[in-house]
Amino acid sequence: MSILVLGTVALDTVKTPFGRRVKMLGGSAVHFSMSARLFTEVHLVAIIGADFPQKHIGFLHKKGIVLTSLIKEKGETFKWEGEYTGDLNAALTLNTELGVLTAFSPSVASEQRDINLIFLANVDPDIQMQLLKTMRRPHFVGLDSMNFWINHKRQALIKLLKEVDIYVANDQEAKTLSGENNLIKAAKILHRMGPKMVLIKKGEHGVFFYSSRFIFSLPAYPTDKVIDPTGAGDTFAGAFMGHLAKSGKINEKNIKNALLFGTVAASFNIEGFGADRTAVLKLRDLQKRMRQFKKCILY
Amino acid sequence: MSILVLGTVALDTVKTPFGRRVKMLGGSAVHFSMSARLFTEVHLVAIIGADFPQKHIGFLHKKGIVLTSLIKEKGETFKWEGEYTGDLNAALTLNTELGVLTAFSPSVASEQRDINLIFLANVDPDIQMQLLKTMRRPHFVGLDSMNFWINHKRQALIKLLKEVDIYVANDQEAKTLSGENNLIKAAKILHRMGPKMVLIKKGEHGVFFYSSRFIFSLPAYPTDKVIDPTGAGDTFAGAFMGHLAKSGKINEKNIKNALLFGTVAASFNIEGFGADRTAVLKLRDLQKRMRQFKKCILY
Repeated sequence: MSILVLGTVALDTVKTPFGRRVKMLGGSAVHFSMSARLFTEVHLVAIIGADFPQKHIGFLHKKGIVLTSLIKEKGETFKWEGEYTGDLNAALTLNTELGVLTAFSPSVASEQRDINLIFLANVDPDIQMQLLKTMRRPHFVGLDSMNFWINHKRQALIKLLKEVDIYVANDQEAKTLSGENNLIKAAKILHRMGPKMVLIKKGEHGVFFYSSRFIFSLPAYPTDKVIDPTGAGDTFAGAFMGHLAKSGKINEKNIKNALLFGTVAASFNIEGFGADRTAVLKLRDLQKRMRQFKKCILY
Repeated sequence: MSILVLGTVALDTVKTPFGRRVKMLGGSAVHFSMSARLFTEVHLVAIIGADFPQKHIGFLHKKGIVLTSLIKEKGETFKWEGEYTGDLNAALTLNTELGVLTAFSPSVASEQRDINLIFLANVDPDIQMQLLKTMRRPHFVGLDSMNFWINHKRQALIKLLKEVDIYVANDQEAKTLSGENNLIKAAKILHRMGPKMVLIKKGEHGVFFYSSRFIFSLPAYPTDKVIDPTGAGDTFAGAFMGHLAKSGKINEKNIKNALLFGTVAASFNIEGFGADRTAVLKLRDLQKRMRQFKKCILY
């Protein structure tokens, strides 16, 4: 099965204790694609501005990402600038320039509308809903968001939650949207808001998965190599959805393995700036680290 | 094998969003004993003041704790007052009255000096060292501490680290003592300071175990019932050491199972104020929850 991902394609400027990078290729849809492509064909739906470097388009194309619905408009590409300090667990946003994103109306090529695995990566929930409505037979829909939308477009997000199969949130987002500090309670509340499954990402502390059929808790891959965590959550989601697409069936076994793949993919993402590390990743790298990971969590 | 635990016996006043309890039975050695007793005979080494209620002594005795080396001195029992808010992950200490603890010199009955499983629960590192030196044939020694000693008796603690088999710390303590924010790096640094094994407790995020032979990462038992987390770490350590004592051999399999038992025991501790919940716990309760826990982490 192919995957269609809606999200941002951005130029990221990131500072961490290990250096500073200016206007790297980034964005939720890019990070998602970098890991999802290892499992299946990925169709990217996003907008870029006239200033977007052609070399990045060449790069995405070379990585096998289908760019039919990547639209280019007059104006500036979405830009984000952030800094990580201390334990690198949370970014401090220094600047956000929405650019062409403010006028983004996703259009999906007719032949792409039959894709039934869809991931709505972080972008305005109104745009996420608009995309979802153009799809003909969504079978499994994942949704990510961020605190900005939780605070500023809460109602649109709540409406969207009723339409998706899995809601993916980091711990802070889960707490904010549910109004509950205990993450298990938060997951239950979010589950009652509509999605069949809730996945809470806790950074270095792993993930917690909740559904009415089973729950699953997984630590992160133990690593002391953290260069830049930007995009780790999207990389996780990409491998998670990718494995589900590849295995073809959404069941407990495949979901648990997808969570393991997501964990391992995220551990590669943080080892380099932007998508440096995931861009050169092969499926066999994931599989090799998966075996190491299993040793650390098997009893 | 029996276990000897050195630590505090305290009267705790705790406020959480679920209420306030005044001068409950608490202290590191008490919480440790409440879970360790489920596995083996526990010998408690601690000091109490003249104000210590006789009913608590009767209670500990009834729970099978060997109180030969619990000494009573003129003066006040050690008292701690704390408050938990928000996600209940960290206590705010409101007041500490050391009382008789300031003059504590542990004395161990001759027949207890042959016990070879020893846990040095949180207390002044000089006292921990003094106790350790009176033991005839320590085979496996666990050490806990807290930020106060890390900051105020760093050298004594560093000296002690070279004498123990496992150092047990929470994430904040591990970061402070190692000077490193990444917990995997912190564990490696602490390991180089002497102990054969390092166990980092991360509260609701589980535990991370590090040794030169293997590493192990485990999420917490997923629970939304958190009444009072006081003593969760000591309860963890008690079940961990207890299982090792019962299984008789310190190997990878037994250590991993001990970490699972510790996790499950801690999840009971937080369900009630003080030792309310662990005081009535049976081994079969632990075993039952262990089965539920395994379902949440097995893939």
